[in-house]
Amino acid sequence: MRLTRATDYAVRVLSYLGAQPAGSRVTRQELIDQASVPPAFLNKIIRSLAHAGLVKARPGVNGGCLLAAPPEEISLLRIVESMEGPIDLHVCLRDASACGRSRCCSFRSVLAGLQTEIVRALGSVTIADLLRDAQQPTLIEATEISKTT
Amino acid sequence: MRLTRATDYAVRVLSYLGAQPAGSRVTRQELIDQASVPPAFLNKIIRSLAHAGLVKARPGVNGGCLLAAPPEEISLLRIVESMEGPIDLHVCLRDASACGRSRCCSFRSVLAGLQTEIVRALGSVTIADLLRDAQQPTLIEATEISKTT
Repeated sequence: MRLTRATDYAVRVLSYLGAQPAGSRVTRQELIDQASVPPAFLNKIIRSLAHAGLVKARPGVNGGCLLAAPPEEISLLRIVESMEGPIDLHVCLRDASACGRSRCCSFRSVLAGLQTEIVRALGSVTIADLLRDAQQPTLIEATEISKTT
Repeated sequence: MRLTRATDYAVRVLSYLGAQPAGSRVTRQELIDQASVPPAFLNKIIRSLAHAGLVKARPGVNGGCLLAAPPEEISLLRIVESMEGPIDLHVCLRDASACGRSRCCSFRSVLAGLQTEIVRALGSVTIADLLRDAQQPTLIEATEISKTT
């Protein structure tokens, strides 16, 4: 249950693009320098984000990237799913036939509730929210990070 | 973000053991037959659960398995962590130095909140709860499974 670095870099790219004036393109080099995305990852990230309809990318000398939608419409859920695939805590939540016990499994109903909560939480925060919150460093630095062990 | 089959089988083993009279041992063969755990997985599952202090296992002809704690004290959180490792949605939640942006990253604070919620939800349900809920099939079958796509 851990997000990959790809989601991390995708959030950086989209946050950087979202902070630019609407409609302006950002070069690959600018994303490497300013959003701190390793060059080896950048093409794959951009490709996945473009495929998910989150960025528009144009190659070439006058090329570059820009958001394909307003920052208010790009949720963390869309970003996570574009990088990690659909959120499925367990295979049986998508395909009940994957387990013969699905219809009488109380563990499954707990996982279904938890998945609904994760989808809700990630769906309720957008790139616009992250950009606004990032302007309040004192608030963020005060956040207590919960550790499970 | 998907649980492995190991967690699935661990929940089955612990639920079956929890449904037995307190203190009675269950054989390996009974777990294979009644809890539907594939033989190839069973030893590894039992070993991990014993290591986590959730079951006591004794080898040999008169051996078998039993819960190491009352079903009310075995939470899904303990089970998931014994099979999947600690719940860390992102490496930066455990080790802030893993990313130079940790202290001003609003994505991290969203993930921290979500992780707290996941830990709380899994920690609040025990094997005893699953056993009680499993006796109410009508309620469980009515549960709507949320799909994200």
